[in-house]
Amino acid sequence: MPIVSVKMAKGRSLEQKRKLTKAITDSLVSVLDVRPEWVSVLIEEYERDNWSTGGELHIDKFGPGCGKQAK
Amino acid sequence: MPIVSVKMAKGRSLEQKRKLTKAITDSLVSVLDVRPEWVSVLIEEYERDNWSTGGELHIDKFGPGCGKQAK
Amino acid sequence: MPIVSVKMAKGRSLEQKRKLTKAITDSLVSVLDVRPEWVSVLIEEYERDNWSTGGELHIDKFGPGCGKQAK
Amino acid sequence: MPIVSVKMAKGRSLEQKRKLTKAITDSLVSVLDVRPEWVSVLIEEYERDNWSTGGELHIDKFGPGCGKQAK
Amino acid sequence: MPIVSVKMAKGRSLEQKRKLTKAITDSLVSVLDVRPEWVSVLIEEYERDNWSTGGELHIDKFGPGCGKQAK
Amino acid sequence: MPIVSVKMAKGRSLEQKRKLTKAITDSLVSVLDVRPEWVSVLIEEYERDNWSTGGELHIDKFGPGCGKQAK
Repeated sequence: MPIVSVKMAKGRSLEQKRKLTKAITDSLVSVLDVRPEWVSVLIEEYERDNWSTGGELHIDKFGPGCGKQAK
Repeated sequence: MPIVSVKMAKGRSLEQKRKLTKAITDSLVSVLDVRPEWVSVLIEEYERDNWSTGGELHIDKFGPGCGKQAK
Repeated sequence: MPIVSVKMAKGRSLEQKRKLTKAITDSLVSVLDVRPEWVSVLIEEYERDNWSTGGELHIDKFGPGCGKQAK
Repeated sequence: MPIVSVKMAKGRSLEQKRKLTKAITDSLVSVLDVRPEWVSVLIEEYERDNWSTGGELHIDKFGPGCGKQAK
Repeated sequence: MPIVSVKMAKGRSLEQKRKLTKAITDSLVSVLDVRPEWVSVLIEEYERDNWSTGGELHIDKFGPGCGKQAK
Repeated sequence: MPIVSVKMAKGRSLEQKRKLTKAITDSLVSVLDVRPEWVSVLIEEYERDNWSTGGELHIDKFGPGCGKQAK
């Protein structure tokens, strides 16, 4: 019954979410010897003013957006 | 000081949230011998494109909505 | 597919855990109109030196134990 | 690599979020002897109809808003 | 800076944990276009008396152990 | 009613936990204008074989221990 939660910046496409949850589920199925229908993957999206690293909000550090292209 | 979090699909009514948090609090009070004012219940609502089971997003598997009627 | 997590002090009996997870599941089934087999309840137990309220660790505030009797 | 998450009522300003994440990061750096860039702080904001204490939703108990002034 | 947490039954080997965290990290790198060093994966292990489905504790439902072989 | 959770490597002393939870509580009180008794801080300790960065378990990357001295 594994439950995976992915915390990440808001802004990914529906297609990326499809691929991501499928890939994570496949990893658990192959490594943990569990059935796909037992695996739940939850995505938790964060605005960049709700995430800091090194004491600095990502909205200030990277501006809006997500992933590498925001750099 | 128990803290309960309920992760569920978005779409429940205010009245359902009232009933749910009351019922959960009552369960903890009676089973754990704690006082009601010590119990916090937090509801975390998910869009169906942020939740997958069996590697498939619920928006694709069940369409929009929540609970049984979405089937 | 609701997922409930209960964070509480370590020390409850297996029987209390049975009753608690059953009562919480029943609450969700009746209020949210979902099936019992969709509901997961996870218990996360904390030592009292890992929980503070008002800036004071519970091990210092209440001593060892859990629930009311620890007062 | 400590990860801190702060669950709180929605409504704080960007400036409060800057100060809060900076202050929390500084606390971890000084007490845990870690580097600032290792510390992530995530803010999770809740509407008052998604948070209950003592079995009562905060929207009913305190009305809208956040912090002391909402009383 | 994505953060992934995997909640699962206790009992997997160190080697399985190595493979699992590597496979999950690779999935995020390829699908989300982020760098490996930005990705944290945290494993949260549960005893079977702390996890219920359908209102029944897994220790009662499946006995001790984890994954398929516990059936 | 803010709730803070700190996820970190296992191994800190009771005294460090006292200082950390006090400092975090003070930060929330001063920045968010809330009362100390409303603030809960929960510490979640991880073994190094349950935490990976860049696809590598910290037990392999840093060996046992916690904080800077483990490097």
